[in-house]
Amino acid sequence: MNAKIVPVGVSARHIHLTREHIDILFGVGYELKPLKPLSQPGQFAAEETVAIVGPKGRFDKVRILGPARRASQIEISRTDAFQLGVDAPVRESGNIEGTPGMTVIGPAGEVALERGVIVAARHIHFQTKEAAAWGIADKQLLKVRVHGERPLVFEDVIARVSDDFALDLHIDTDEANAAGVATGGRAEIVDA
Amino acid sequence: MNAKIVPVGVSARHIHLTREHIDILFGVGYELKPLKPLSQPGQFAAEETVAIVGPKGRFDKVRILGPARRASQIEISRTDAFQLGVDAPVRESGNIEGTPGMTVIGPAGEVALERGVIVAARHIHFQTKEAAAWGIADKQLLKVRVHGERPLVFEDVIARVSDDFALDLHIDTDEANAAGVATGGRAEIVDA
Repeated sequence: MNAKIVPVGVSARHIHLTREHIDILFGVGYELKPLKPLSQPGQFAAEETVAIVGPKGRFDKVRILGPARRASQIEISRTDAFQLGVDAPVRESGNIEGTPGMTVIGPAGEVALERGVIVAARHIHFQTKEAAAWGIADKQLLKVRVHGERPLVFEDVIARVSDDFALDLHIDTDEANAAGVATGGRAEIVDA
Repeated sequence: MNAKIVPVGVSARHIHLTREHIDILFGVGYELKPLKPLSQPGQFAAEETVAIVGPKGRFDKVRILGPARRASQIEISRTDAFQLGVDAPVRESGNIEGTPGMTVIGPAGEVALERGVIVAARHIHFQTKEAAAWGIADKQLLKVRVHGERPLVFEDVIARVSDDFALDLHIDTDEANAAGVATGGRAEIVDA
C-alpha cells in the first residue's frame, strides 16, 4: 500500500470575524481584501490585521482570515496564550462554548469578544474522495509522523472530511517548532 | 517488562555563563545566588537574570542556571528564535561551534557573545545504573511518548548517561506546548 503523505500547513496566530465585527472594527460594509488564498478552497488571508489584547500581553498585526464567519474566533498557540495571559483550551474550530474572550482592536473601533479564543486542535482536512480512498472517516483520530528536523508522531490528529476540503495537515507554531517543520513540509499518516 | 516511565522537565529559555562573563555582567567575583535546585544534582536556577538582545527582539529576565560553565550558552525555543531574529540551530548542550551569538546585558555590564545560542535537542538524563537496568546506552536515540493533553511521540530523543545525572526528560517550551504537558508530567520510552 502506498504511503499516505499529507502536506503540512502551519497556522500562525489569526482571527476569523463575523460580518458584524468587521463592521465595528473597519467600518460598516467594509470588505476584506484577499491577500493570498489558503489551502482550503474559498478561504483567504486578508490584507487587514487587528490587535488582540489579553491581561498580560498584546499582539499587533494579527492576520484576519476570510471570508466572514458566523462566530468570531481567535486561534493562538499555547505559547501565545501564556504571553497574553489567557487560558485558551485546545478545541476544534467552531467549538467555542465556554472559551475565554479577548479585546480586538481595529482602525475603526474595538470589540470585546465574550468567547472564541482557542488553541486549535491539530487536524487534517480531507476531500471526501481522498478520505474514502484511504479508508478514513470524518472525526477519526489519526497518528501522523512529521518528517521534520525534530521527527515526531502526533497522535489524536482529527480527520475532517468534506467535499469542500483539500488535503492538508494543520498544526500550530508550537507544534511546527517542536517538529522542526514549516509549511510545505511533509507528513505521513502512520496508523489510520 | 515494566513500562519505562520518565518524569518530564520543561526548560524555559535560560542562560549558562562562564566565570569571566559573570564578572563582566555582575561585577568581579560576584557569586550567583541559588534560587532553587534543578533535577540534575548540583545544578540550580539562580536568583539573577539577564536581558538577551537579538536583531528583532529582546527578552528581559532570562534566568541564569548555575554553577558557572566553561562556555556561555543561551538556550531558547524556536519560537523565541523567531522573536529574537536569530537562526539558532537545534544542538546538544555544549556543541556550540558555528552557532550565532547575542548581546547579554547585566546590571554591571554587557557581553557580546560570539557564539552559544542554541535550541536544545531534546534528551533524557539517566543515572548510569538506571540506564543499564533498562539497556540504554549513552547517545542512543529513543522514542518517547508523552501522556499530555495533546499526546505525541518524540523521536530522536538523545540518551545522556552519567553517574552525576538523575532521570529526567528535558524538552523546551515549544515541545511542551505541542504535547500539552508541563514539568511534573510523565513520559514513557516506547522503543529503546
